[in-house]
Amino acid sequence: MLLSALLTSVAINSGLCILFCTLYSILRKQPSNYAVYAPHLLAEGKSKRRSRFNLERLIPSPDWLQTAWKLSEEELLSSSGLDAVVFMRLITFSMKVFLFAGIIGIFIILPVNCSGELHIVDFTDLPSNSLDVFTISNIGNRSKKLWVHFSAVYVVTAFICYLLYYEYRYVSSKRMAYFYSSKPQPHQFTVLVHSIPVSVEGSISDTVDRFFMEYHPSAYLSHVVIRRTSKLRSLTNDAKQLYRRLIHLKSDHTQQKDRRSSCFGLFGRKVDLANQYEKQLEDIEHNVRLEQASLAGEKEARAAFVSFKSRYGAAIAFHLQQSTNPIEWITEEAPEPDDVNWPFFSSSFIHRWISKLTVLVACITLTIVFLIPVFFVQGLTNLNQLENWFPFLKSILTIKFVSQLITGYLPSLILQLFLKMVPPIMLFLSSIQGYISQSNIEISACNKVLWFTIWNVFFATVFSGTALYVVDIFLDPKNIPGRLAVAVPAQASFFIAYVVTTGWTSVSSELFRMFPLLCSLIMRPFTGSIDNELEVPPLPFHRDIPKILFFALLGITYFFLAPLILPFLLAYLCLGYIIYRNQFINVYAPRYETAGKFWPIVHDSMIFSLVLMHAIAVGIFTLKKLSLASTFIFPLPVLTLLFNWYCRKRFL
Amino acid sequence: MLLSALLTSVAINSGLCILFCTLYSILRKQPSNYAVYAPHLLAEGKSKRRSRFNLERLIPSPDWLQTAWKLSEEELLSSSGLDAVVFMRLITFSMKVFLFAGIIGIFIILPVNCSGELHIVDFTDLPSNSLDVFTISNIGNRSKKLWVHFSAVYVVTAFICYLLYYEYRYVSSKRMAYFYSSKPQPHQFTVLVHSIPVSVEGSISDTVDRFFMEYHPSAYLSHVVIRRTSKLRSLTNDAKQLYRRLIHLKSDHTQQKDRRSSCFGLFGRKVDLANQYEKQLEDIEHNVRLEQASLAGEKEARAAFVSFKSRYGAAIAFHLQQSTNPIEWITEEAPEPDDVNWPFFSSSFIHRWISKLTVLVACITLTIVFLIPVFFVQGLTNLNQLENWFPFLKSILTIKFVSQLITGYLPSLILQLFLKMVPPIMLFLSSIQGYISQSNIEISACNKVLWFTIWNVFFATVFSGTALYVVDIFLDPKNIPGRLAVAVPAQASFFIAYVVTTGWTSVSSELFRMFPLLCSLIMRPFTGSIDNELEVPPLPFHRDIPKILFFALLGITYFFLAPLILPFLLAYLCLGYIIYRNQFINVYAPRYETAGKFWPIVHDSMIFSLVLMHAIAVGIFTLKKLSLASTFIFPLPVLTLLFNWYCRKRFL
Repeated sequence: MLLSALLTSVAINSGLCILFCTLYSILRKQPSNYAVYAPHLLAEGKSKRRSRFNLERLIPSPDWLQTAWKLSEEELLSSSGLDAVVFMRLITFSMKVFLFAGIIGIFIILPVNCSGELHIVDFTDLPSNSLDVFTISNIGNRSKKLWVHFSAVYVVTAFICYLLYYEYRYVSSKRMAYFYSSKPQPHQFTVLVHSIPVSVEGSISDTVDRFFMEYHPSAYLSHVVIRRTSKLRSLTNDAKQLYRRLIHLKSDHTQQKDRRSSCFGLFGRKVDLANQYEKQLEDIEHNVRLEQASLAGEKEARAAFVSFKSRYGAAIAFHLQQSTNPIEWITEEAPEPDDVNWPFFSSSFIHRWISKLTVLVACITLTIVFLIPVFFVQGLTNLNQLENWFPFLKSILTIKFVSQLITGYLPSLILQLFLKMVPPIMLFLSSIQGYISQSNIEISACNKVLWFTIWNVFFATVFSGTALYVVDIFLDPKNIPGRLAVAVPAQASFFIAYVVTTGWTSVSSELFRMFPLLCSLIMRPFTGSIDNELEVPPLPFHRDIPKILFFALLGITYFFLAPLILPFLLAYLCLGYIIYRNQFINVYAPRYETAGKFWPIVHDSMIFSLVLMHAIAVGIFTLKKLSLASTFIFPLPVLTLLFNWYCRKRFL
Repeated sequence: MLLSALLTSVAINSGLCILFCTLYSILRKQPSNYAVYAPHLLAEGKSKRRSRFNLERLIPSPDWLQTAWKLSEEELLSSSGLDAVVFMRLITFSMKVFLFAGIIGIFIILPVNCSGELHIVDFTDLPSNSLDVFTISNIGNRSKKLWVHFSAVYVVTAFICYLLYYEYRYVSSKRMAYFYSSKPQPHQFTVLVHSIPVSVEGSISDTVDRFFMEYHPSAYLSHVVIRRTSKLRSLTNDAKQLYRRLIHLKSDHTQQKDRRSSCFGLFGRKVDLANQYEKQLEDIEHNVRLEQASLAGEKEARAAFVSFKSRYGAAIAFHLQQSTNPIEWITEEAPEPDDVNWPFFSSSFIHRWISKLTVLVACITLTIVFLIPVFFVQGLTNLNQLENWFPFLKSILTIKFVSQLITGYLPSLILQLFLKMVPPIMLFLSSIQGYISQSNIEISACNKVLWFTIWNVFFATVFSGTALYVVDIFLDPKNIPGRLAVAVPAQASFFIAYVVTTGWTSVSSELFRMFPLLCSLIMRPFTGSIDNELEVPPLPFHRDIPKILFFALLGITYFFLAPLILPFLLAYLCLGYIIYRNQFINVYAPRYETAGKFWPIVHDSMIFSLVLMHAIAVGIFTLKKLSLASTFIFPLPVLTLLFNWYCRKRFL
């Protein structure tokens, strides 16, 4: 790849970013888009919906940038919770790392690479230089210059470890501050007990009562046995929705109060909406009563929420093993009420265990064989196939530009679409894994998506083959560094372009919220008013944390191979910094609080990136026949892993 | 190896065993050997020492066999504790396994092997057959007969897993019964707190008091801060010893009460021993007082025993994290008073962590490079070297028998001596690893010795090279089954001989107690009376459990390759069964009780043996070009590991 090609790509993608931002700054001011671009503000009542039309609405303005920039961490914490703070810390952490690595990379390593023996930089016509000139590939075997890279690896590793320790301590202190400052909440007094053994005499409720009266006589308060109530749940959900609509209707005096009764409100006789809702609500209440009556004493699951008189009592019940048989009377911390994942309460220990195992196998299979169907579908998109399937396209496909577009863009578009499907799939897999809270499901999905991305984007690209082939490489651990050293630098230009195209676009489309915008545009004609059912979305951490972590992995592994990646990465992170802060202010609101439980994933991922980088360094130095350097790298991964071990012991 | 050679070896070793047993049954009846052969009985006062001489003492009698055979599990439990019961369960478990595998092996697999294509059994002259005739090597490629071995692998794995589950449940129930039946003991009310943070105001003692008064106000009773008192400890040890001698002297009227004051009691003026002891005791008491006074308020370690009003209170303090900083105020269960390992109380978290790490590295290094010095020393024992060093041996070394003895036996003797040093070395390494109780040290040493043996005896023999070479093999995991399949069957005859020679001899020398007997014989002239300082030894579990587990590993891995190993293994286990029961009655007494904590080691080792056996089976079937069978074996290790995972969750 030539430098000019990269510069073209940078220019195109910068243009796209600016376009997105400009469009955003206009669209966000249109009242009809408030539900898309500022649901959080709307829900908090900080934004008024109906304002009269004025010209200012059509002129792009950068005031949102200023608001986002000025937001302090305390404000973020109070409005979006600790998880948002942790997410922003991840971005600032990466910025610090890549600023430091960038200074070393651009001012020390890059000149050294350029002065290498293999190619000579053509300063008269910079854009025509190959990107290889700027990478480590440009340095000859046994060159003393490699010691610069060696030192850089040591310095940057030390810096990252220092920062990791500092950040972990900070997150940990924030986490404690959160617990100290939070008021006593019901779920803190409660534990969830599951796998309650069935006794012949008496119901589950009696058993639970007897058990806790006997073993926790002073602390035990009460309990609620969990019942299988999917019908009841849907009824109460309906009731909630109706209630919300009714409240909205009564409070908002501008809205039309009646509507035609059928066919999307276009035809039929007019009815009073408020009356109609109230009548529906009464019906539902009646049904709920009936259902509750039929439930009494039946359909008890073998699980219960047990409440204690003090948080200390609940903590004791949670930490001590309750039964001599460790797979009965299992206690878990009760999740926040909004965080409960109901479907899995009824399952026994064995049931959970089997589902966990099945999901594990499914994940590994998915991760390993994912690229096979993708390649297959991509193969189908060749021109002849398309012409066979859709003969009417024949005339269009003969145009050179169209055919280039299809062969050039379609395969990568298909790959991106498939990759977009991964976070929901992983979330689904995690949800059937037996977790009792949404937050645990999301944490688990976050991990799954991260490893999936590393495997299927990094390794599959690096070894330019299917993941199955990669498995084969990993079964031969002795040769991993050598193979990495050959394959990783070869993909440097690809990944630099990847940061610019995928990275920049993904973060600016995050701002633009393409999909919700389209949904809102399509649905608007069919629904009378949108914010009747205004739902403030939470940030899908399981989608965005792995994305940022993956770019951090690229930065860490490539900083000494191809330091040219670092400025683009920094630009990505700066964009992300402003845009995510803006989104936290305007769009996302937390649904539950994990209180910083995402940080260990970040920490582990960084440690993995470091060790991977060391493995590549070992391979590179061996390849360049500087065996002394590759020997001296060896202590580094060991020390990094020890550092990780210490951090795990020390924090959280 | 020919069958006749094996039979010779069996004959020689049977002879040795019978000789040992006969000698034992005479020697044990000599009063002077009571301290060697029946210290446990002596200490319990069940055996009277001085009986008059009679002829019966010189005639070997098998009555000890009968006593050992009749011992019930309840008697063993009450006299030697749960650990002895678990040890005997290990032996009976192995007997059951190899009885079952033996029936399948001898009556089904052995005939199939003999009917193999490659060699034909010469029934007219059985002893002249090669042992290969009886192994799987005798079966040709793609033979349908291999399905017999395939089925045997499945059946035996299922049987072993069933037994493992059953035994784990039994041990677990015994463990609970032990806790239920034991009277409340001080250490159950106590936790050990270490890594107490140093505060500027006040001593450690005040800090502990304040901390537990604040966080455990209702349960906290008192505490004892640990001090560095090595001098005081040696003084009290001296006092204890003197006191024991004095008591013994006063109670035993037959013994001489005075002795000459110098030179091993041979010369000097006579002194009254009782008086002398009492005077020494008074001196020590005085010194103890002085030392105690000088200690007050000084040399406090950052650790304390904290006692609670109830066992429940202690359990809560042990299970809950005490501090927001997880590396301060670390709680551990207090060990039994006799079980405490004092030297490591003063160390901080980081100190323990570093020592643990150092020991880990030392162990791995020792395990990997152990064979190198052994081979080196063995190399030095060639005849020319010996002649150079000790010229006076020249005439003896020229005799053919002597030279054969030296070249034939000396290397294996040196190897055995080096191996004998391993359990003490591992015990030492574990003792500096930061454990606070002797029992944990022993459990950890047991694990270390086990893996050392598997690595340096099994793998080093199988791949007939140093362990460094074995490391190289394990870095190429894909080819492990293939390499095992080539190497393991080739060593079948060696390991059959190993069971007969090393196994049988080691267990009968356990009965004979060669080393204590020699010590007692040598020391007798110098000490007036032996049982003044009668110490009842505990069974060194860290030496004997790995030994038995290693033979079980041999049995499990070889049962379908060379079923001829099974009868010899069964004989070894039967011998062990009788002899260890006898030793528990007569010799060993428990010093502390781990209450069955050795069983998980047994369980894990069995699971490892099974998975190793499956890997070998996969390799063998691939080698014999029966790829269908090797594919169908794959689920087996997965299921076994899942079973192991379940057991870990389910028990203890």
